[in-house]
Amino acid sequence: MSLAVQNLSTDDQVLLVDLLLNQQYALELITSEINDIENGLKTVDEQRYKKLICLYDRLRFGML
Amino acid sequence: MSLAVQNLSTDDQVLLVDLLLNQQYALELITSEINDIENGLKTVDEQRYKKLICLYDRLRFGML
Repeated sequence: MSLAVQNLSTDDQVLLVDLLLNQQYALELITSEINDIENGLKTVDEQRYKKLICLYDRLRFGML
Repeated sequence: MSLAVQNLSTDDQVLLVDLLLNQQYALELITSEINDIENGLKTVDEQRYKKLICLYDRLRFGML
């Protein structure tokens, strides 16, 4: 988790996620990250990659 | 807080905020929300509006 996230209160984090979901940008954000990883532009550990795929599926197929 | 946010684990929320900050899209997201509010396209309570302004300032002036 980046330093910036740690400097945000839980309240601020929830507010950002709320905006993200309300403005329907979450799926695009995750898709871009997965593409970067699959194209070798970014390296992440296996666990983070799996979390991204799982979150993508939940958002993509309206399981939230 | 919307239902969708409540259906996300804290882990998922932190992951989304991490992506948001890493892809430097948080400021744009908040700016868009503030513009909608100030143009009367969205109505929010005073507390949420103040939080948005405060978060905007912190992000805009690199106080994270």
